[in-house]
Amino acid sequence: AMDGAPSPTSPAGLSAFVAVSQLLGLTLLATTGAWLGRYRGGVAWHSPLQFNAHPLCMVLGMVFLQGDALLVHRVFRHEAKRSTKALHALLHGLALLIALVGIIAVFESHRTKGIPDMYSLHSWCGMATFVLYLLQWLLGCGFFLFPGASFSLRGWYKPQHIFFGITVFILSITSCLLGITEMLLFKISDSYSHFVPEGILANTLGVLLVAFGLVVGYVMTREEWKRPPLAEELALSMDFKTLTEGESPGGGS
Amino acid sequence: AMDGAPSPTSPAGLSAFVAVSQLLGLTLLATTGAWLGRYRGGVAWHSPLQFNAHPLCMVLGMVFLQGDALLVHRVFRHEAKRSTKALHALLHGLALLIALVGIIAVFESHRTKGIPDMYSLHSWCGMATFVLYLLQWLLGCGFFLFPGASFSLRGWYKPQHIFFGITVFILSITSCLLGITEMLLFKISDSYSHFVPEGILANTLGVLLVAFGLVVGYVMTREEWKRPPLAEELALSMDFKTLTEGESPGGGS
Repeated sequence: AMDGAPSPTSPAGLSAFVAVSQLLGLTLLATTGAWLGRYRGGVAWHSPLQFNAHPLCMVLGMVFLQGDALLVHRVFRHEAKRSTKALHALLHGLALLIALVGIIAVFESHRTKGIPDMYSLHSWCGMATFVLYLLQWLLGCGFFLFPGASFSLRGWYKPQHIFFGITVFILSITSCLLGITEMLLFKISDSYSHFVPEGILANTLGVLLVAFGLVVGYVMTREEWKRPPLAEELALSMDFKTLTEGESPGGGS
Repeated sequence: AMDGAPSPTSPAGLSAFVAVSQLLGLTLLATTGAWLGRYRGGVAWHSPLQFNAHPLCMVLGMVFLQGDALLVHRVFRHEAKRSTKALHALLHGLALLIALVGIIAVFESHRTKGIPDMYSLHSWCGMATFVLYLLQWLLGCGFFLFPGASFSLRGWYKPQHIFFGITVFILSITSCLLGITEMLLFKISDSYSHFVPEGILANTLGVLLVAFGLVVGYVMTREEWKRPPLAEELALSMDFKTLTEGESPGGGS
């Protein structure tokens, strides 16, 4: 759409915040890996270490990838809306898939060890978050990717999609913090209060998760950083508004 | 300001959501009371039950009162801005005071029982949240209540105040969920996985906390429910804009 024209730049503050978010995201993964590798024996599938796949998959899928999917509309602010929407949906889909693997890991590990499922606040919050995330993804695809939804229907759904998207992201981070607390009290309940390194490391992971959420949340909600509509989109939406005043056809934007 | 004129009404959806939030808030308090009263021996100050003042104060101050303080600008949408700002600050001040009592309760209880302080993720998140809340309150008073801040400075700070205010509210609820998980694993670690009533009740308290946060968050962020500026305010802000284009005097709005 902009062949030859000078590439439009992003606001300077935005680029800095996105860079910090990615550094935090990678630090999250490294810290999770360090915790599991150094203190919990590592990660493996058909083994007593299968449980450890759970925290790794959840931090990767439900936090890092979900967070990056949320940033897509801010980072690729001058690409065609169609492409950014597809990437947004793709990243969320990948996040859901990885989270599903993480959920299977904990259920299989519980079955092997004879531990009951779904009794803790962590499991309640985590499962509710995953189900809401899947629902949000299906609704998002239905309203914004498939051509059936009218322009006015999309306009009505968009603020709901944003509110519940941010909600699911916050609930994901909250569920991770609950999981960290549970795991520490299961594994090192005797030494946790003596400020042992594993406790400090896992607490730090919790703080990093909150920091990642804060930076992503700030980027998403800052008014000046919202995606500017492209000239084509504005023209198109005008056409649609004129066409659909009051009622609306079945076409997409 | 509107003597004799018919009282302007709020959007119907807003009133329903506010009513639900208050029902949820009262249910929160009742559930916390039921948990502490029925399963944890009740609440008292100079006694081994002093710890129990902690969850009660935190749910009342950091969640219910903080949440209601956030709703003030939506509920009293047609009152003078000066009055709603004062009520907003007052409720937050009361919330901070009650939270302080709750923090003293846990530190004194730890000292009596010889338990170390500040080692858990719950304590890190909770203390950070309280300090941020206090800071936010001081900054809010400095920018919006004292007459020193210029109109343009207030305009710059307002979106930050809103973002960090919502952040502190979310962190407060997250800290409560972490506290519930800790308390259950300290007190009923053997029976929690057998779905005992105390576990179910405390988990339900966690779910209610999330629900309260969701409803308050929805009311606060819904575009159509934002407080409409009063005619006087619009006129005043026009005057100020004209007066302060570029630079600004020391007066308040």
